[in-house]
Amino acid sequence: MILDSILMVDPLEGEFTGSLEIEDGKISRISKRERSWSFIVIPGFFDPHVHGSFGADTMDLSKKSLEKMEEFFYAQGVTSFLPTTVSCSLEDMLKALDVVEEYMNGRDVTSVLGVHLEGPYISPEKVGAQNPEYVREPSEKEINAISENDVLRLITMAPEIEGFSEYSKTLMNKGVVISMGHSNAKFEHVKKAYDMGVKRITHFPNALRPLHHREIGITGAGLYFDDIVLELICDGVHLSPQMVKLVYKTKGADRIILITDAISAAGLKDGVYELGGLRVFVENGVARLSNGSLAGSTLTFINAVRNFRKFTGASLKELTRVSSYNAISNLSIENLGRIKEGYIADLVVLDRDLNLIATVKRGEVVYGKIS
Amino acid sequence: MILDSILMVDPLEGEFTGSLEIEDGKISRISKRERSWSFIVIPGFFDPHVHGSFGADTMDLSKKSLEKMEEFFYAQGVTSFLPTTVSCSLEDMLKALDVVEEYMNGRDVTSVLGVHLEGPYISPEKVGAQNPEYVREPSEKEINAISENDVLRLITMAPEIEGFSEYSKTLMNKGVVISMGHSNAKFEHVKKAYDMGVKRITHFPNALRPLHHREIGITGAGLYFDDIVLELICDGVHLSPQMVKLVYKTKGADRIILITDAISAAGLKDGVYELGGLRVFVENGVARLSNGSLAGSTLTFINAVRNFRKFTGASLKELTRVSSYNAISNLSIENLGRIKEGYIADLVVLDRDLNLIATVKRGEVVYGKIS
Repeated sequence: MILDSILMVDPLEGEFTGSLEIEDGKISRISKRERSWSFIVIPGFFDPHVHGSFGADTMDLSKKSLEKMEEFFYAQGVTSFLPTTVSCSLEDMLKALDVVEEYMNGRDVTSVLGVHLEGPYISPEKVGAQNPEYVREPSEKEINAISENDVLRLITMAPEIEGFSEYSKTLMNKGVVISMGHSNAKFEHVKKAYDMGVKRITHFPNALRPLHHREIGITGAGLYFDDIVLELICDGVHLSPQMVKLVYKTKGADRIILITDAISAAGLKDGVYELGGLRVFVENGVARLSNGSLAGSTLTFINAVRNFRKFTGASLKELTRVSSYNAISNLSIENLGRIKEGYIADLVVLDRDLNLIATVKRGEVVYGKIS
Repeated sequence: MILDSILMVDPLEGEFTGSLEIEDGKISRISKRERSWSFIVIPGFFDPHVHGSFGADTMDLSKKSLEKMEEFFYAQGVTSFLPTTVSCSLEDMLKALDVVEEYMNGRDVTSVLGVHLEGPYISPEKVGAQNPEYVREPSEKEINAISENDVLRLITMAPEIEGFSEYSKTLMNKGVVISMGHSNAKFEHVKKAYDMGVKRITHFPNALRPLHHREIGITGAGLYFDDIVLELICDGVHLSPQMVKLVYKTKGADRIILITDAISAAGLKDGVYELGGLRVFVENGVARLSNGSLAGSTLTFINAVRNFRKFTGASLKELTRVSSYNAISNLSIENLGRIKEGYIADLVVLDRDLNLIATVKRGEVVYGKIS
């Protein structure tokens, strides 16, 4: 397949025009030429924090649900994602890991790159929309059990909980990335984790101890340390547009990872849904528990990207950083996320207004049409 | 007078070595030469927000008190300051302005450059240590009365109060600088004031609506808008060292104005003092009302500068920005705040560890000794 007369945007090299050739699922040749262009081609989106969509949920513990999610996400430009759990029993965590492993093993090509466990080792004071019934401290037994399966890529834990230092080391030694989240941590807790190499925060600054000028806490620490990367839910609800811009201004596009945190209600009508055993009420697309807590989102990834552009005025190059490259680098995934010869041909085709025209997965058009 | 073998630091040109000559109270000649140096010479400090010290208070409404403050401040390197009122009756505000005017007229040389009115047109929800009894909305009568006197240079008002737009215009037309403070303002309130040209915030982020990620408020707005300048109390108590660094990182040294916000207890022992008719308890140098609210500080300016350096790692050039130049520029004062020929010879002499060696006011040594 050849894409011609396009504007390509690479997260490191920026914008260039010309043509791009795909062979065997990879970018085989890029010809840079000064010329007019009709479409923008950027790396496919990566959503490392997404619970579900279109009625399907990671916690369904079913391959069918993963398949539905994958299909739905193609329509948003997402070519990689981590199905994300919520706080649950050890049994269900292990099942979720097994189901994802089977699903991945059963397919030559898949967007599923592993699992993100959100909880249960989080702060009881910052549960957000997690079910408090399952929130607990980690134990050697549980940590050993969950880290046996290689598909575990990312885990959200609160750095102030008992055992964090010990168990995060165990997990990091197995290649699992730790993200601090659902946390009431003070600055000193975060600094300790940071010094150990923990440099990521989950859906900043939702479900985090807020910034106070005499104890800047985990929210302040996320802004303070240059090289902590922050997940952001850019639906305009979880954070105001001004907050998104302030984070962008303080951290720069290189330290932001867009996520949807979408739940099974995404893509469906307003109504009553379920998340981790809790009832979720979706009104005007905003998902809340009965107590008013935000409960994930119904955001689509393409809209997250468009919102980020609108809120911050970020360049196209910066959009490729926040929509895939930063997440990919953070998880040390190779040969993905660049417009470069030899890289996997996971691509998104956009028009000038950033409308999604087509999604390409391993060289195949899986959504839309390339004329 | 000639100062030789010194390191000079100018807020615009940075560091250079050589000698500096003073004549008729002005810097008459600077000779730049590569050579070793024993002392650092920088512009004298400017404290635009200080209530009192050593038992004296602006609200004593006495020239004697102003004189005491001036003397005490020389010992801290302060060569310019604005005596600062607290919320009080119109009568007392006018008296304060008159006393300062008389004081200034009665001296050939003085550090007093005008008055800072802190309140009374502030938010009843964010009084801090202001006496709520006097907090009120502005009126045409009051605004006309206070702006008749030219010594009014700076006023702290909450941008969300009734009449702010109208009266801040009146004041700005007379050359008064408006600083937003003691405020519960939402982002939109600040944006409106900002669009009118109000670009300063009083003792950020003390007595301000805190940052929330869905309504970033005046605290968020202070970080959001690049060209809003922020007063900071760098005593390590009003803001944690990490918060100071976060503000420095987000705003840069060009947008920070160090203040002491010191009260009459500064320089005295722990004990019970008074501020605007309220009792203040000073314990270990920290001043609080009986309800625990911080009530100004007992900070000295030289310590504010040293703390800022310690908390942020700022360069000497940046220190001259935050300790005088930014405040001087913000108030549009000319011929002051630079190490440059023709500028007023208000200087501070420091050793390598930033210990205060001497203070020079209009070419005269008013504190310490120059060998």
